[in-house]
Amino acid sequence: MSSSIDPRATRSRDAILAAARSLLLDEGPAALTHQRVAQQAGVGRATVYRHWPRPEQLLLDLMTDVDMPYFQEPEAPVRSWLHSQLRELADAMAVPHIAAVTLTLMQGALWDPQVATQRDACLEILNERLEVALALAAANREIDISADPIDFSAILVGPIIYRVAIQAGSVSPHFIDHLIDGLGRWDVDSIRRADQNGQPA
Amino acid sequence: MSSSIDPRATRSRDAILAAARSLLLDEGPAALTHQRVAQQAGVGRATVYRHWPRPEQLLLDLMTDVDMPYFQEPEAPVRSWLHSQLRELADAMAVPHIAAVTLTLMQGALWDPQVATQRDACLEILNERLEVALALAAANREIDISADPIDFSAILVGPIIYRVAIQAGSVSPHFIDHLIDGLGRWDVDSIRRADQNGQPA
Repeated sequence: MSSSIDPRATRSRDAILAAARSLLLDEGPAALTHQRVAQQAGVGRATVYRHWPRPEQLLLDLMTDVDMPYFQEPEAPVRSWLHSQLRELADAMAVPHIAAVTLTLMQGALWDPQVATQRDACLEILNERLEVALALAAANREIDISADPIDFSAILVGPIIYRVAIQAGSVSPHFIDHLIDGLGRWDVDSIRRADQNGQPA
Repeated sequence: MSSSIDPRATRSRDAILAAARSLLLDEGPAALTHQRVAQQAGVGRATVYRHWPRPEQLLLDLMTDVDMPYFQEPEAPVRSWLHSQLRELADAMAVPHIAAVTLTLMQGALWDPQVATQRDACLEILNERLEVALALAAANREIDISADPIDFSAILVGPIIYRVAIQAGSVSPHFIDHLIDGLGRWDVDSIRRADQNGQPA
């Protein structure tokens, strides 16, 4: 963080993002006008304009907070690490404002090329992380992979988005296990060995 | 169709729905105002108001066209029938206005209880149909099911929505087969027998 940033500007930026998040949650993306956001944040409209000339950019910045923390730095046994990551993702998706931002990102990408670019960047990071994790699992002989790497996220994340954001249902450990099983044939003995040894080289 | 319906009213209703569909596709749900829809359809605003007092209702009627034709009347072998149904669903989701309506339905349901009710009705029909189809497959000994019936649609449809509407990617036959494999253990011999015999009782 650069020391040249005005702390007052940071405070108003944070207040505006919090206001936008709360409006999005309560009323949907149509409420994200400069006027409503400024009013809710208790700042002038000009301040909102200065940071985000177009309301869509505000939505993009809300989204940046949401998509990134999952599937980083895999650990052996990968199977249980994957389970805990999918649990965190499912719990996050169950938070209304995260579901709202996620579905708004998906929907907005259909019409707004800038949103589509942001969406594609998120998806690519997700794919890369899952490929790294499953490569580790394969190297550890935890799994004999049968799914195509390009399908990992559709197989794991697609059903969780469907269950949480579309069916408004909850994600059981059994459901997560079933999705993980869909990647290939897991070897119980190798998973147990990885668990005892910690993460192998 | 009742003969008491004024054919002129039907024509203007169809024109309004077509206009709304085209606006949704080109500009997103924010464009579905009474004024824009009336202009695009070449009818008076009052006509749009009369049929759809709130723009959300127009969106709901667009959605009614979209979700229903899949997974009806399963045939043995269920596996190949399921494959062809998922192919049709994937091809439909790849049509921009159907993807748009689907994501708008999902997103709108977060804020609008009426949209949520419509969404839930669609999801319930989908679940029921898949349960019927998989019950037939199990009765034919095509499959030893390992997934919970409540998860059928999340396992089959979730990844397809993810692939088509979120990743903007295409659905290969291999991808569909992989999803179908996720329901349980399929028996190749029983599938072949069902194929030779037509649909058993």
